[in-house]
Amino acid sequence: MDESNAGSCRFLKAARCCNSGRPPVWLMRQAGRYLPEYQEIKQKHSFVEMCSDPDLAFEVSMQPYRRFGLDAVVVFYDILFLAEAMGAPLEYNPGPKFLEPLRTAEAINSLADPDPAGHTAPVLETLARLRSELPPEVAVLGFAGAPFTMAAYLVEGNFHRSGEWIKRLMNEAPDLLHALLEKLARATGSYLGAQLQAGADTVQLFDTWAGLLGRDDYRRFAQPYQEAVFDSIADSGAPSILYVNGGSHLLEEMSSSGAGVLSIDWRTSLREAREFLGKEIGLQGNLDPSILFGDPAEVSGKANQVLDEMAGDGGFIFNLGHGVLPGTPVESVRALVEAVQSRE
Amino acid sequence: MDESNAGSCRFLKAARCCNSGRPPVWLMRQAGRYLPEYQEIKQKHSFVEMCSDPDLAFEVSMQPYRRFGLDAVVVFYDILFLAEAMGAPLEYNPGPKFLEPLRTAEAINSLADPDPAGHTAPVLETLARLRSELPPEVAVLGFAGAPFTMAAYLVEGNFHRSGEWIKRLMNEAPDLLHALLEKLARATGSYLGAQLQAGADTVQLFDTWAGLLGRDDYRRFAQPYQEAVFDSIADSGAPSILYVNGGSHLLEEMSSSGAGVLSIDWRTSLREAREFLGKEIGLQGNLDPSILFGDPAEVSGKANQVLDEMAGDGGFIFNLGHGVLPGTPVESVRALVEAVQSRE
Repeated sequence: MDESNAGSCRFLKAARCCNSGRPPVWLMRQAGRYLPEYQEIKQKHSFVEMCSDPDLAFEVSMQPYRRFGLDAVVVFYDILFLAEAMGAPLEYNPGPKFLEPLRTAEAINSLADPDPAGHTAPVLETLARLRSELPPEVAVLGFAGAPFTMAAYLVEGNFHRSGEWIKRLMNEAPDLLHALLEKLARATGSYLGAQLQAGADTVQLFDTWAGLLGRDDYRRFAQPYQEAVFDSIADSGAPSILYVNGGSHLLEEMSSSGAGVLSIDWRTSLREAREFLGKEIGLQGNLDPSILFGDPAEVSGKANQVLDEMAGDGGFIFNLGHGVLPGTPVESVRALVEAVQSRE
Repeated sequence: MDESNAGSCRFLKAARCCNSGRPPVWLMRQAGRYLPEYQEIKQKHSFVEMCSDPDLAFEVSMQPYRRFGLDAVVVFYDILFLAEAMGAPLEYNPGPKFLEPLRTAEAINSLADPDPAGHTAPVLETLARLRSELPPEVAVLGFAGAPFTMAAYLVEGNFHRSGEWIKRLMNEAPDLLHALLEKLARATGSYLGAQLQAGADTVQLFDTWAGLLGRDDYRRFAQPYQEAVFDSIADSGAPSILYVNGGSHLLEEMSSSGAGVLSIDWRTSLREAREFLGKEIGLQGNLDPSILFGDPAEVSGKANQVLDEMAGDGGFIFNLGHGVLPGTPVESVRALVEAVQSRE
């Protein structure tokens, strides 16, 4: 595999399948509500303020790194701001909600191409600061929602577990959905390109809801648009990560998206995924974040199971299968991270 | 396979893997909001009234049969009434909500064993009427929620897609959850036994939320309690069905539950499931209910794909992968059912 740019960074080596030491570790939603130092800032500022002010976003992004010494720092931001930048009114109360769900051709056509220097500029500034202040062995991660998942949020307004409206649109007016997905793929590609230019070493594309699709629909409505996004940033040479929740039936399709790393959840076995995928693609995951509600000794035990299962795998990145949950005990997160770090 | 009791009933033959004609067809939530004749009754009665009055429940159960001539009639009722019968206050507004989510040992211990002749007696009367009025070639289906799924509803109160509280309980106090699951398994076994005695030819156990679990957790918290339920009704000799939503990673575990038929969704390929499972177990499914929002010609096309894929399979029962959605066009349901029926 290509070792260029990996240098001393454990994360980038693993993302290029050429890591020879312990796996790197970071956690989805590692910055957030479970941390007391986050709560302190949250008392004075809204979530939107914390994302939009690069001083606050930098501080919040750094909190879990300072506490646990993780191998990657992910920028504190939200995938939905890109849609807001395209003209979709968005409210947090406290969960996100698009005030005018997109369900007509007119509404979909009125979405504008976003200006990376405009509404989403703060994330670029935060990424630049993270990259300049963190040591080179720590990777800086940017991210975005994948077109299907962004479309699902936009069409549902307030996302429901079954994706009833997005699936209705998929069947009632597939061409309209394709038009929306194309627009989102274009915006997302240039958005991630700007993040990489600003300082991100790698980016993760969250197709969180694509696991609701059967394989045929995934091939029509999710995979081509993931591919378009990854294509548009391929020139950067940066490794990229694709995350799908509940995608155990989609491994083959995920592997042909162009992503260098697949991020899977607890429903897919890491070892079976590795056997199926071969050694040319990175694997990230996969513990159920709810295990962190167990006591620290149990948490260590479960982390060690994963570490044993993936021992010697040069393309493995240790993570959860979904974001850290609010209310998670800090000591369990510490036990998890230390289990990985003590492998060296 | 055992052909006893199958007689002229296409559904029972398929459930015993010895059907030689076209597959039987019925649809989960085939009675309900998408039918104008249902809406007419709904204008005068609440959902709870419609379930609790055997005259109304009989009428509503029969509506889709009268319209489409299906091979099985499922009784109109709700899985949550069993928990209400155990003492958990339940409200529909319009979605169901347990008013006092069970999250303490005290609350869990206070659940009582239900009396089948009590609160849930109407469903038994409705089943008896359905069995006595329908011709023998039409199967009558009873059902219940599986212990894990019932526990998820009880613990969450108002179910969220991620199952945050039930998973928290699973990790923080597994023994307490096991106590709840045991109690639910006992109640569910005697409840389904009573349904079979009253007139049901077969029963479906809905473990709708068990697909949120990884394999290890499924083996600990879902599978043993499904097994306990199926064990307790094994003497009846009736075939039973196990449904899991999003269970493509759990096929092996599902197959050892004791169910005679596995009901799978659009994320699992029927053909691959058949190859994996062998020919001794029935398979039911699996179209995404959202395809019914497409035009009738497309619906027929998708039904025919499934029919071709499973042609000659003596253990196949045609169904959706989840319940019919509100707002589904009646003509699409007709096109779906006719595609199956025209295979003869």
